[in-house]
Amino acid sequence: MKDEDFFSRSRIAIVGLGLMGGSIALRLRGHCGKLTGVDPDPSTREFAIRKGIVNQISADPAVIIPEADIVILAAPVDVILEFIPRLPDIHTGKPVVIDIGSTKTEICQAFADLPARFQPVGGHPMCGKELGGISHASANLFLDAPFVFTPLPETTEYARSCAEQLAKTLGAHPVWMDSKTHDRWVAATSHLPYLLASALVLSTPAEASAVVASGFQSSSRLASSPPAVMLPILGTNRENVLEAIARFREYLEKIESALSTNDFERLLAYLEEGSMRKEELTG
Amino acid sequence: MKDEDFFSRSRIAIVGLGLMGGSIALRLRGHCGKLTGVDPDPSTREFAIRKGIVNQISADPAVIIPEADIVILAAPVDVILEFIPRLPDIHTGKPVVIDIGSTKTEICQAFADLPARFQPVGGHPMCGKELGGISHASANLFLDAPFVFTPLPETTEYARSCAEQLAKTLGAHPVWMDSKTHDRWVAATSHLPYLLASALVLSTPAEASAVVASGFQSSSRLASSPPAVMLPILGTNRENVLEAIARFREYLEKIESALSTNDFERLLAYLEEGSMRKEELTG
Repeated sequence: MKDEDFFSRSRIAIVGLGLMGGSIALRLRGHCGKLTGVDPDPSTREFAIRKGIVNQISADPAVIIPEADIVILAAPVDVILEFIPRLPDIHTGKPVVIDIGSTKTEICQAFADLPARFQPVGGHPMCGKELGGISHASANLFLDAPFVFTPLPETTEYARSCAEQLAKTLGAHPVWMDSKTHDRWVAATSHLPYLLASALVLSTPAEASAVVASGFQSSSRLASSPPAVMLPILGTNRENVLEAIARFREYLEKIESALSTNDFERLLAYLEEGSMRKEELTG
Repeated sequence: MKDEDFFSRSRIAIVGLGLMGGSIALRLRGHCGKLTGVDPDPSTREFAIRKGIVNQISADPAVIIPEADIVILAAPVDVILEFIPRLPDIHTGKPVVIDIGSTKTEICQAFADLPARFQPVGGHPMCGKELGGISHASANLFLDAPFVFTPLPETTEYARSCAEQLAKTLGAHPVWMDSKTHDRWVAATSHLPYLLASALVLSTPAEASAVVASGFQSSSRLASSPPAVMLPILGTNRENVLEAIARFREYLEKIESALSTNDFERLLAYLEEGSMRKEELTG
């Protein structure tokens, strides 16, 4: 049986239809079997049904989850961590369970505690928007983005195939790595930049908004991310984020010291190295 | 005589046809008298003539400047500072001189030392791109951007009118403020963000590029700014930039301390305040 065949017949339930879950649903429509959703927010449920984003939705996981072949956990990290231990009571079968939480180590630990009949795999699509909610969802959100998957020792070949097929259906490209590596790297590329944007706007005098240009807009963009979503991400990746802050501070102090001592040769060397590193990292 | 009338007949010389000077020229074409340029780079001169961006161009200011009614200095800050004292030997009339350097205090001091026949006014359009050079120039670069002007005590009404008309022709909106205020504010909104982007990319492990998403792209974008252009900007705004770094570090340390002591209530308060400040500053 080809990957596409089993995936196109799979009944998929998405827990959490915010920006990410809603965008997954928009893209999966017509590419899987019955598509269902769970969301605690009445206006989200109403929106999802009115726009035909899912075939069925409920606030109660027990109404939706039991008949799913694949369960996608697309809630905030803290909600995912609370939800995983409830799965054995809700689903009596052996579903594939893929989460898309922004940190992976604690979630994969929770997955490891599930009964052996469950087929869990950690996931994290490397995309998003600073504006949350299903009304900002887009079927194209995942296009060309890396979709990181973090396998557990108990992740089956079948669960791997489902994860790969999910990424491909979303237009993303699957990248497999272990959960600890993932968390260390996203601390540097995602959680640190968020905190820098927050500290930047907090330190900017209000009057200075008169001279705000596109550079400040980019640099401060992430400060608009929803704090309630970001807090559990930071909480579950605390050590890595603290290390990333310390590494950042070291370089900022080098730059500050070069400027304060009028050592423009050294300052230029940092700026030139930074320009090259930027190219290597994102070019 | 209406503003538009005198401006549309003015002969305008632009010194430095890089991204900014080139973009000004592209937009002024057909909205002023003879449009000329000075640039030391042969390929820039060749490009400007081949694309019909200016009517005449030379590497030698003495060929171009003497017949200009308005001289726009669009070179890097250090080049502007070297060029201003040469103006009295090159131009025997009483031209309006507008610079667009990213820092204003030192440039306005140099303007103040010009003979009284010159009509100087400091300027700084709040826009740009991280990619320099005339090949990246765009007639729409200034659209809807604030164009800051910093008057000197010796700035004439006529020079003010020219500055206002220049901004309007570019599609920007003129904002008048004193040079010291400008420099203090752009330290916070432009120069600090550049250094943060540089320190961010310098502190990011190369392997982490596998999980780079759009958030990191925005946060690190300014690190691509040309170091040779940024260095004199930082050098001429050193005190303000050091103060902005110190203010930023204070907030980063507060955030770091809340995270390292597991004080998530305090951390959430900073993130929420940051989200609101972001809205106030750029919303």
